[in-house]
Amino acid sequence: MIIPSREYIDSIVEKALEEDVGPGDITTSILVPPGVKSRASLIFKEDGVLAGLDFADAVFKKLDPAVKFFPAASDGEFIKAGRTAASWEGNAAALLTGERTALNFVQHLSGIATYTRRLTDLLKGSRTRLLDTRKTIPGLRLAEKYAVASGGGKNHRMGLYDQVLIKNNHLEFYPDISEAVKKARSGAPESIKVEVEVRKLDEIEPVINAGTDIILLDNMDDRTVGEAMKIIAGRVPAEVSGGITEDRLVVLKNIGVDYISMGKLTHSVKALDVHLLLEQAG
Amino acid sequence: MIIPSREYIDSIVEKALEEDVGPGDITTSILVPPGVKSRASLIFKEDGVLAGLDFADAVFKKLDPAVKFFPAASDGEFIKAGRTAASWEGNAAALLTGERTALNFVQHLSGIATYTRRLTDLLKGSRTRLLDTRKTIPGLRLAEKYAVASGGGKNHRMGLYDQVLIKNNHLEFYPDISEAVKKARSGAPESIKVEVEVRKLDEIEPVINAGTDIILLDNMDDRTVGEAMKIIAGRVPAEVSGGITEDRLVVLKNIGVDYISMGKLTHSVKALDVHLLLEQAG
Amino acid sequence: MIIPSREYIDSIVEKALEEDVGPGDITTSILVPPGVKSRASLIFKEDGVLAGLDFADAVFKKLDPAVKFFPAASDGEFIKAGRTAASWEGNAAALLTGERTALNFVQHLSGIATYTRRLTDLLKGSRTRLLDTRKTIPGLRLAEKYAVASGGGKNHRMGLYDQVLIKNNHLEFYPDISEAVKKARSGAPESIKVEVEVRKLDEIEPVINAGTDIILLDNMDDRTVGEAMKIIAGRVPAEVSGGITEDRLVVLKNIGVDYISMGKLTHSVKALDVHLLLEQAG
Amino acid sequence: MIIPSREYIDSIVEKALEEDVGPGDITTSILVPPGVKSRASLIFKEDGVLAGLDFADAVFKKLDPAVKFFPAASDGEFIKAGRTAASWEGNAAALLTGERTALNFVQHLSGIATYTRRLTDLLKGSRTRLLDTRKTIPGLRLAEKYAVASGGGKNHRMGLYDQVLIKNNHLEFYPDISEAVKKARSGAPESIKVEVEVRKLDEIEPVINAGTDIILLDNMDDRTVGEAMKIIAGRVPAEVSGGITEDRLVVLKNIGVDYISMGKLTHSVKALDVHLLLEQAG
Amino acid sequence: MIIPSREYIDSIVEKALEEDVGPGDITTSILVPPGVKSRASLIFKEDGVLAGLDFADAVFKKLDPAVKFFPAASDGEFIKAGRTAASWEGNAAALLTGERTALNFVQHLSGIATYTRRLTDLLKGSRTRLLDTRKTIPGLRLAEKYAVASGGGKNHRMGLYDQVLIKNNHLEFYPDISEAVKKARSGAPESIKVEVEVRKLDEIEPVINAGTDIILLDNMDDRTVGEAMKIIAGRVPAEVSGGITEDRLVVLKNIGVDYISMGKLTHSVKALDVHLLLEQAG
Amino acid sequence: MIIPSREYIDSIVEKALEEDVGPGDITTSILVPPGVKSRASLIFKEDGVLAGLDFADAVFKKLDPAVKFFPAASDGEFIKAGRTAASWEGNAAALLTGERTALNFVQHLSGIATYTRRLTDLLKGSRTRLLDTRKTIPGLRLAEKYAVASGGGKNHRMGLYDQVLIKNNHLEFYPDISEAVKKARSGAPESIKVEVEVRKLDEIEPVINAGTDIILLDNMDDRTVGEAMKIIAGRVPAEVSGGITEDRLVVLKNIGVDYISMGKLTHSVKALDVHLLLEQAG
Repeated sequence: MIIPSREYIDSIVEKALEEDVGPGDITTSILVPPGVKSRASLIFKEDGVLAGLDFADAVFKKLDPAVKFFPAASDGEFIKAGRTAASWEGNAAALLTGERTALNFVQHLSGIATYTRRLTDLLKGSRTRLLDTRKTIPGLRLAEKYAVASGGGKNHRMGLYDQVLIKNNHLEFYPDISEAVKKARSGAPESIKVEVEVRKLDEIEPVINAGTDIILLDNMDDRTVGEAMKIIAGRVPAEVSGGITEDRLVVLKNIGVDYISMGKLTHSVKALDVHLLLEQAG
Repeated sequence: MIIPSREYIDSIVEKALEEDVGPGDITTSILVPPGVKSRASLIFKEDGVLAGLDFADAVFKKLDPAVKFFPAASDGEFIKAGRTAASWEGNAAALLTGERTALNFVQHLSGIATYTRRLTDLLKGSRTRLLDTRKTIPGLRLAEKYAVASGGGKNHRMGLYDQVLIKNNHLEFYPDISEAVKKARSGAPESIKVEVEVRKLDEIEPVINAGTDIILLDNMDDRTVGEAMKIIAGRVPAEVSGGITEDRLVVLKNIGVDYISMGKLTHSVKALDVHLLLEQAG
Repeated sequence: MIIPSREYIDSIVEKALEEDVGPGDITTSILVPPGVKSRASLIFKEDGVLAGLDFADAVFKKLDPAVKFFPAASDGEFIKAGRTAASWEGNAAALLTGERTALNFVQHLSGIATYTRRLTDLLKGSRTRLLDTRKTIPGLRLAEKYAVASGGGKNHRMGLYDQVLIKNNHLEFYPDISEAVKKARSGAPESIKVEVEVRKLDEIEPVINAGTDIILLDNMDDRTVGEAMKIIAGRVPAEVSGGITEDRLVVLKNIGVDYISMGKLTHSVKALDVHLLLEQAG
Repeated sequence: MIIPSREYIDSIVEKALEEDVGPGDITTSILVPPGVKSRASLIFKEDGVLAGLDFADAVFKKLDPAVKFFPAASDGEFIKAGRTAASWEGNAAALLTGERTALNFVQHLSGIATYTRRLTDLLKGSRTRLLDTRKTIPGLRLAEKYAVASGGGKNHRMGLYDQVLIKNNHLEFYPDISEAVKKARSGAPESIKVEVEVRKLDEIEPVINAGTDIILLDNMDDRTVGEAMKIIAGRVPAEVSGGITEDRLVVLKNIGVDYISMGKLTHSVKALDVHLLLEQAG
Repeated sequence: MIIPSREYIDSIVEKALEEDVGPGDITTSILVPPGVKSRASLIFKEDGVLAGLDFADAVFKKLDPAVKFFPAASDGEFIKAGRTAASWEGNAAALLTGERTALNFVQHLSGIATYTRRLTDLLKGSRTRLLDTRKTIPGLRLAEKYAVASGGGKNHRMGLYDQVLIKNNHLEFYPDISEAVKKARSGAPESIKVEVEVRKLDEIEPVINAGTDIILLDNMDDRTVGEAMKIIAGRVPAEVSGGITEDRLVVLKNIGVDYISMGKLTHSVKALDVHLLLEQAG
Repeated sequence: MIIPSREYIDSIVEKALEEDVGPGDITTSILVPPGVKSRASLIFKEDGVLAGLDFADAVFKKLDPAVKFFPAASDGEFIKAGRTAASWEGNAAALLTGERTALNFVQHLSGIATYTRRLTDLLKGSRTRLLDTRKTIPGLRLAEKYAVASGGGKNHRMGLYDQVLIKNNHLEFYPDISEAVKKARSGAPESIKVEVEVRKLDEIEPVINAGTDIILLDNMDDRTVGEAMKIIAGRVPAEVSGGITEDRLVVLKNIGVDYISMGKLTHSVKALDVHLLLEQAG
């Protein structure tokens, strides 16, 4: 799991505050007396897996570095409705101004972690791992992938820079798929894996021989996946993607694929219902 | 409708490319011969309302300023599955590298526009308007609000800076709600509207008398909303929020509320299924 | 009043230090021994209203986070010549390097606040409020508007994004002024006010009927303003702008206009004479 | 004269547009039909010296790169009231959105150039040159210094990085002024001049002997300046600062000082009255 | 090979121009008449491998987008002393201002490419590949790695984010090296390779069994490397690092190691002698 | 000596960490238990002059603000192989993640300081000073010049903005060299020195008469330099550049030139061998 660095969290939180606070929080500036202290508690209103606590904390810290943070749970932890995941104490104005932005992070990231957990639970006891994709919300790639990992999923490549993935569109320029794989092998940095998307069973053998590290079986039905796995015969790991549902997840697990990747983990997220209770401190 | 400025689109697209491309697209760098031209067509795989076309265009233009853009539809337009919304011609490498990022924008923003359209269709013929909220994905506030407007919704405030909205948390410091409203009225810039959240019916009269521009009826059941509307009696517009479902939308429309606001428009978006067909150009 | 956020102050102060310090303060680097402590006192050399204290503090804190701040007055306070408004203690090098930049903020913003106070004093006891405009120094919009508010003025819109203001140039596209107002009404976010500039008396009635929130009487002589006020008859607030002098301010107050806006508050500022006394600390 | 680079102008204009346009120009977005072309003419409403034309052009180009620029005068040129200094043709929306920001640059910078010209005219025929100072509006240092040069003034150091200027505050650490000057001489980069502020006549001789490049006579009355000039006897150039009025300018010119520096050139600027006439193009 | 993206080159060139040009090129501003055109030719004064041409071009394009570029060679090409690698035509001022910055890029990157070529020539005909390291000049990582690839070397990981490399310092927390490898395997994203540094021969077997993708033989003498290669027996690729000289390169090639990595390729670069000939154009 | 400001160091360190850490340090994230403390000692593996300690410290502080810094030497100090220059205590994860970046700064900057010291030692006892040039690694100008100064060299101009240097390429536009010098004199800010490059002996007299502050003798052999020095006769300082070797350094010292400038100080740096020893703390 890549844990987002402080720098990353700070920069993404800064952008989020800029768009929400802009030149200033008018209501709070006018109505909240300076110096008043409050306590803000992050409460789950439905069951779910927590993710994004450090993002929420960074929101409040940006607005008032003196805010104190009392975590009561950690990212990746399952939390029952009604329970408090964390609380903060500090300037009432800072807590009020940051409330919505902090919640926006937690509800979105915990939504991802919660859904991922539900699916990875289906794969328990098997060797099949659930992967995310690059179908993420623009600007939140790393945060979302961290949320997937918090939910028990495994990350696929972060972007175009940390793995070769040869797709049909790249193969257009290569009559012979082996040639493309070999060229990638030799051109890529030593540390970089090569994965190849195959759409037909007879592409598997040449692709393995050309030295791919992973095979992606894209948009194949379950039966074809089964046949593909027999051809691959454990020589390289196999990933399945395209049209994955909860039912298929179990079928594919039983077939024994190594990885299943789902765009839905990050592109169609249902926010988790969390809220922030503000009370007079002291 | 606030149309996002070129500057805004460029800066958000730049961030998105940074996280996906990072130091470089290894696969394309190695496999796609320089100078090859392609055509990329944006095709809808399900019915929906288009939003975000300029974001997709900006993605490709960033990667190759010489890419040509051929729009076949406009944001806000309903598009049938199978139809092409736009196409681009230019360097194959630029189109391949930008593919996923362009799609991530269009699938998310069109998802918002499509869902908004479905709900605003339910309100047709009435004076009730559907509003968004500040429950948006961090970093995408303006883009998402633009998508809501493209779907026929109306925008609520952009952030904490362009409207006063007095909530319960602010009222804690004011035993008399009128005092808070008056203070906001006089302290806020001349151009800024004041909205007040009321939770009990007997707060309505003092709030109107103190000069609020809008009343927010938060988390009230339909019957209470009805009573509130009678008390307000058209003196100021009324907004209803909290626990809105499609069914309640129709009930509230019939009660005659001015605005209904729904966080779900932006916090729990289902991506629209769109893809990019890449073909040899020329 | 919008109080500039820490983020805003920090970012504007950082730019200011960049342009003054650039790669480094040569004189201080060479001549001031490291570790020496000083005390810097901000002294008013003429009577005036303080504004910008947090900007000065941010300058010194950027250069040395350990600098200690001892405010002796608050923004908006009237200060007699000779009095000390604040002092700082810390590294002599940091105080010397920051001196000019800190003073540049305070002399400019206090200049605005002082002049604003002189004018708002003329309006005392009336309902007429003095507004600023968008005629500000590029890059200092929010700081200058904050200084106006510190001097007792009220802020007009922050920019093009937080209010509709329909001017003659926009009306060119609309033979019927009502049509423009209605279109703005329905197109603008729910939270946004609509103001319309009228140049002729017979535009007032249709503009009010079309639902404007505010009327701007631009470049009218006092008599015409008087007639306009009779037509408006309190239905919406009225703002007067163009060619305002101190004498006219009193006339317009007596006519009873709601708002008077003056570009001069921010576009032709006379710096207030303040200086920084540096003494050996301890 | 340092001519601001494209990079510099672009970055400062970008900041200015950000604060004025923010998420978008609501009025123009709603009311101005896309595709309409306009012509905008920059007209002087009072006599003055033009400065900042490239800043205005950059404003419009940022909003629409296709805007065409027709300069009718150059920075530094004296322009009579009523004359047009430049015009632009392009998207009506871009011209309307940029109008205020473009004018804010031109009115401020031309205000500086105009005032500078008035003072430098008083020095004509002499060897005395008028200098600016570091008392500039935060964030606009280079632009303002460029405006001073456009008005015929000469620039003093840009900031703390391009000259040593030893002031009283630095001398506190040095019982012997010569020692400070020598240390600066030897510690400063080879390309950097050393200037020393003297407050008493008997400091002049040791300062010259220690190798200063320039002497700053700070806050001396005219008679003392005269005596100082006799002591200096042309060995190094002399700058006079502090309490300069138009009358003293002529006295000091007659005494024959090399440089006179005035903070007022940039810290208390009266905006020049310029406006933008927008007309239908074609 | 990762080809640096336009975005990357632009941003790094922008920084370089900022530090060299700062507020402006005084000499050129004053002395070079506007509108004069020149031709600048990049000439090699010693034999070498070209790298960084696009960086030089970006320098001139930033200063004047109308500059025309005439490449006469490509990155990675060997060029004899006296030959012209490229030329540019455009504003004399832009070419003069950019000269040094453009050369600084080309002389440094070509220096890297030239030295890399000399070493890779020694490995010709073998399977041994030369790798770079993370010992790069701060801020130039990607550019330097691109130069290594231009010289015929292969890139090791870009940074800490695109490969696991378990070093002694990490192993301190793991009494059993296998445990660390397994934990990394299971915790890392699916696309990420795991490499392990071994210092003793008996660590090889457990590390391979635990599933490492690559073995790093650090600071071993040639004999020990030979023994290690026998133990590894081709099961995973082996990299050798530490104390590599040109002589050892040949010895290690003969032993048959897969990779040799050398910090010297990038941390101790001798600039290649190139210069820019400026001539009147046309 | 210009000591790099905190702002400068922070921004350059941030860039360096971005390129090395990117989205995160995978190895450390997975393997190093949170909360473990370590001590990191910076040890010299060869004799050298320390430079860049504050850069290393900033690297660790960015990753963990709670890291404690124990300097055992100062920049500019000569350190024997085996000695520890500084140590840090704090989060093991932060120290591990920052190790390489911190070392990259110290090895490069100390490499510069060490080589500069070797050369300035050759000039001891003379008035001749060693200067750097603008031939620096893009993005590191100020840091490298600071390292030169730490090694005992003197800085030439920082960039194009803090000195006029008239080179042959500028003179192309001026048949009479005096004219160019006079124009520069009068056009440059008052604080800026003028230096002129001469290539022939008969240019010296007119250049001095036109008022140059410094003369640059470029690419002359020792005998010609000697003649030039006689013509100059101490009226202005003289700098020699081009083809400088250690032997020539001594010859030129004996001739008595004021300055010798060498690009090699910064463009062809040999990294100093330093490493970081990590140990369990406590």
